[in-house]
Amino acid sequence: MPNRETKAQLLSPESNEKLKEILLALEGGAFSSIRRMLNSLQPPAIAHLLVSSPPNRRMLIWEMVDKDLEGEVIQELPDNVRVQLLHEMDSTELAEMTEELETDNVADILQQLPDQVIQEVLAAMSTQNRQRVETVLSYDEDTAGGLMNIDTITVRPDLTLDVVLRYLRRHEELPNSTYSLIVVNRRDIFLGILPIPKLLTSDPNMTVREIMDTDIIAIHHSTKDSEVANAFEREDWVMAPVVDDDGKLLGRITVDDVVDVIREGADHSLMSLAGLDDDSDTFASVRKTSPRRAIWLGINLLTAIIASSVINIFQDTIDKVVALAVLMPIVASMGGVAGSQTLTVVIRGMALGHISRGNLSWLLSREFLVGLINGLIWALIMGGIAAVWFDDKIIAFIIAAAMIINLIFAALAGALLPVVLKSMKIDPALAGGVALTTVTDVVGFFAFLGLATYFYA
Amino acid sequence: MPNRETKAQLLSPESNEKLKEILLALEGGAFSSIRRMLNSLQPPAIAHLLVSSPPNRRMLIWEMVDKDLEGEVIQELPDNVRVQLLHEMDSTELAEMTEELETDNVADILQQLPDQVIQEVLAAMSTQNRQRVETVLSYDEDTAGGLMNIDTITVRPDLTLDVVLRYLRRHEELPNSTYSLIVVNRRDIFLGILPIPKLLTSDPNMTVREIMDTDIIAIHHSTKDSEVANAFEREDWVMAPVVDDDGKLLGRITVDDVVDVIREGADHSLMSLAGLDDDSDTFASVRKTSPRRAIWLGINLLTAIIASSVINIFQDTIDKVVALAVLMPIVASMGGVAGSQTLTVVIRGMALGHISRGNLSWLLSREFLVGLINGLIWALIMGGIAAVWFDDKIIAFIIAAAMIINLIFAALAGALLPVVLKSMKIDPALAGGVALTTVTDVVGFFAFLGLATYFYA
Repeated sequence: MPNRETKAQLLSPESNEKLKEILLALEGGAFSSIRRMLNSLQPPAIAHLLVSSPPNRRMLIWEMVDKDLEGEVIQELPDNVRVQLLHEMDSTELAEMTEELETDNVADILQQLPDQVIQEVLAAMSTQNRQRVETVLSYDEDTAGGLMNIDTITVRPDLTLDVVLRYLRRHEELPNSTYSLIVVNRRDIFLGILPIPKLLTSDPNMTVREIMDTDIIAIHHSTKDSEVANAFEREDWVMAPVVDDDGKLLGRITVDDVVDVIREGADHSLMSLAGLDDDSDTFASVRKTSPRRAIWLGINLLTAIIASSVINIFQDTIDKVVALAVLMPIVASMGGVAGSQTLTVVIRGMALGHISRGNLSWLLSREFLVGLINGLIWALIMGGIAAVWFDDKIIAFIIAAAMIINLIFAALAGALLPVVLKSMKIDPALAGGVALTTVTDVVGFFAFLGLATYFYA
Repeated sequence: MPNRETKAQLLSPESNEKLKEILLALEGGAFSSIRRMLNSLQPPAIAHLLVSSPPNRRMLIWEMVDKDLEGEVIQELPDNVRVQLLHEMDSTELAEMTEELETDNVADILQQLPDQVIQEVLAAMSTQNRQRVETVLSYDEDTAGGLMNIDTITVRPDLTLDVVLRYLRRHEELPNSTYSLIVVNRRDIFLGILPIPKLLTSDPNMTVREIMDTDIIAIHHSTKDSEVANAFEREDWVMAPVVDDDGKLLGRITVDDVVDVIREGADHSLMSLAGLDDDSDTFASVRKTSPRRAIWLGINLLTAIIASSVINIFQDTIDKVVALAVLMPIVASMGGVAGSQTLTVVIRGMALGHISRGNLSWLLSREFLVGLINGLIWALIMGGIAAVWFDDKIIAFIIAAAMIINLIFAALAGALLPVVLKSMKIDPALAGGVALTTVTDVVGFFAFLGLATYFYA
C-alpha cells in the first residue's frame, strides 16, 4: 500500500487528548510550544477551547491564535464570546479578518458591533465584499434574510445538463455546502432546484427543466429564524431558497446555519426559565454575571414577599397552632413542582409549534385531570403522615384539602400562563416560572391557612 | 413565460392555512374531503398534524393516511408518538411499510418494538433488506453505529474523476444526502472523502487520490450520539464516515440524522429538570401522563418533609415570634432561585462539553463571589423591608444574615451537585433540581430559625 494511506483522525472518547495537552501546557506556561500546538488545531477546536476558558486565559489563548486563523475561529464562536474578542480588534483588523469569510457570517459578526465600527469596517472592505455584506445587513438578524447566504449558484431551466456541468467546471471551487443548484428565470424568479446527485445520474442531454424539483418550499425573507429551523428539522432539508414578495431569489439557507438556531431555540426555554441569557457564557466574569442574576433575584424577592403577605394575614391562626408553620411549605412546594411540570410541557409544545387554539382545551382538561388525580394520591398520603406526626385529624384534613386545591390551580396556571403571556407578547419561558410560583405560593398558603383559620378559629 | 413557471410554495407565517383547514374540517367531520386534503400534504406536515393532536383525533387521522405514505410519515414522528401508532399495526404491515425507508430509519423504528415483533418483521422482509437492517440493529441505538446509514457510495483512490463520474451516472439515483463519496482501499479501510463539489470543478483526468480530503475525522462506531452531535455542530459537518477499530468503513452519518439528536440533547436538560420524559408527548393521555409525574411529586414530597422537619425543630421559637413563620419562606425561595441559576448554567455547560476538571475551580469561585455579592445586595434590602414591616431590628438582622448564608450555599451546591451526581453516574439534569432545593430549603430554614433561636431564646 502507498504511504499516503495513513490512518485517519478518529472521533472517539480519546479525541480530546490534544486539547488536554494544551490545557496542561497552559498551566505550565511554555508559550512557544503552546502556540504551535494551538495553531495546529482545527478552527472549531480552537473555538471550543476559547469557550471553555475563564476570561483571563481566554484572552491569553486568543493572543496566540495565528492572524490567518482568526476569522475562521471567530465564526465558530457563540455570540457572547465573539463580542468579547471583537472588542479587542480595530476596524482595519476586522476588515482584513472578514475578507475570507462567507457573507452571512460577516454580517453576523458585524451586527454585534457598534454602528460606528460597522461603518468603519465596511469602509475598509473591498467594494464587492461591502455590497454583499450590506445586502445581508439590510435584513433583520432573526429572520430568514439574516440567516441566508447570497453566494448561490443559479442556472436557467432551458440549459442542458451537459452545459451546466461545463459551467460548474469553470469555477475554481463551489461555495461551501453546494448540494443543489437553484433554477431561476431571466428575471431571477425562483423556479425550482436541481439537486447535484440528480445532475450526476441523469442523461447529460436532458434539460434542467426536465429534471428539476419544483415541489420545493421557498422561504420568504421575513420568516422568523425559529420557524425556518422548525421547517428544516421537520422536513430534513439541507438547503432552502429565500425569496422576496415577488418570488425573486435572494439567497439560500443551508443546514449548518440552522443547526445553531435549533440549539439556541432549545436552550432558550431552559435558560429563560432560570432567568438567564439564552447565550449565557459559561465562563462570563463576575462583573457580567452578577447584574442579570441580581435583577432576577429581585423579581423573585418581590413575589416571595407577596406570598409572605398572605401568611401575614393568618398570624393569629399560626400563633394558635404552630404546626401549621411546619407543614405550610409542603403545600406550596408541591404546587410549585406540579405547576412547573405542566409549564415545561406547554412551553416546549409551544416552541415546537404543537399547541394551537384547536387543541388547547383538550390540554387544559388533561392537565386538570392529572392535577386532580395526583392531588388526590399525595393528599391522601400526606394527610396520613400529618395525622400521625401531629396526632391531629383536623390538620390532616386541612393539608390534604389544601394540596388538592393547590395542585389543580397549579395545573391550570401551568397550562394557561404561557398562553396568556404569549398573547400579551411576553416571553412565556422568561416570565412563566416566576408568575407560576407566585400563583402556587399564594394559592397554597391561602388555601392551607384559610382552611385552618376556619377550623381552628 | 411558459406555464410551468408557477410560483413556488412559500414558507411564511401564512403557511399553516392548509393545516388549519384540515383541523376545521375535522371538527365538522366531512371525512372524505379530509382524507383528500390530508393525503395531499407532505409526509412531514402529516407527522406534524399527528403530533399536535390529542390521542383520539390522532388515531382518526392515522386511519385516513394512505398506505404508501405511512412509512414516510412514521419516520418523521418522535419516538413516543411513533410507538403508539406502530402498536396498531401487524408484522406484515410493518414489513411492507419499511421496504421504502432508509436502513437507519428502519432500525430506529424496529428498536421500539417488542423482540418478538422485530423477529416477525425481519422474517417478512426481503433478504437484502433484512441483512442491512440486522447490521445496523447490532449497534447500540445511542451510538454512532446506531445513527449511521450503510448505503454509502465508495470509490478507490486510483480511479480518475472521469471514471468516477461515469460510475455515478450508472446509478438510477444516489442515496439521499450524498454530498461526498467516501474513498476506501481494497480492504475497505477509510482513506478520505471526495466532496462532490470538488469532483465537479476538478479536471476529469485527475485521480481521486489527488483531490480527496484526507484531513477528515472518522467516527468510531462506539462514540456516543451526543458526542457525534456536538462534533457536527462544532465543525459544521454535513457528513462523517463511521469506522471500526481497524479503520474499516462501516457507514456514514449525515447531518439530518444529527439534527434530531441535537434537539433531543437540548430538550433533555429542560424536561429532566422538571422530572419529565425527554421525548414527552405534549398530547399524551391522562393515563400515560399521571404515573411519571406522580413519582416525581412523591420524591418532592419526601424532600419537602425533610425541610419541614427542620422547621419542626424550631417550633418553640416560632411560637415566641410568629413573624418568623411569615418571613421564613422568603429565605428558602431566594436560595432556590439563586441555586437553580447556577445549576442551569453548569448543566448546560456540561452538556456542551465546556466544563472539565481544569476550569471547575474557577467556576466555583465565580459562583461563590456572585452568590456573595447578590446575597449582600438583597439581604440589605430585605433586612430594610423586614425592619419596617415588623418594626424589629433583630429580625431584620436575622433574615439578612440567613439570606447571605443561603445564597452562598446555593451557589456552591448549584455548581458542585451536577459534577458530583455525574461522577456517581446519576443524570444531573434529572436529580439536580430536587437535590438542590433540598439543600436550599434545609440550609435556609436552619440558618434563619437557628439564628432566631439564638437571638430570641
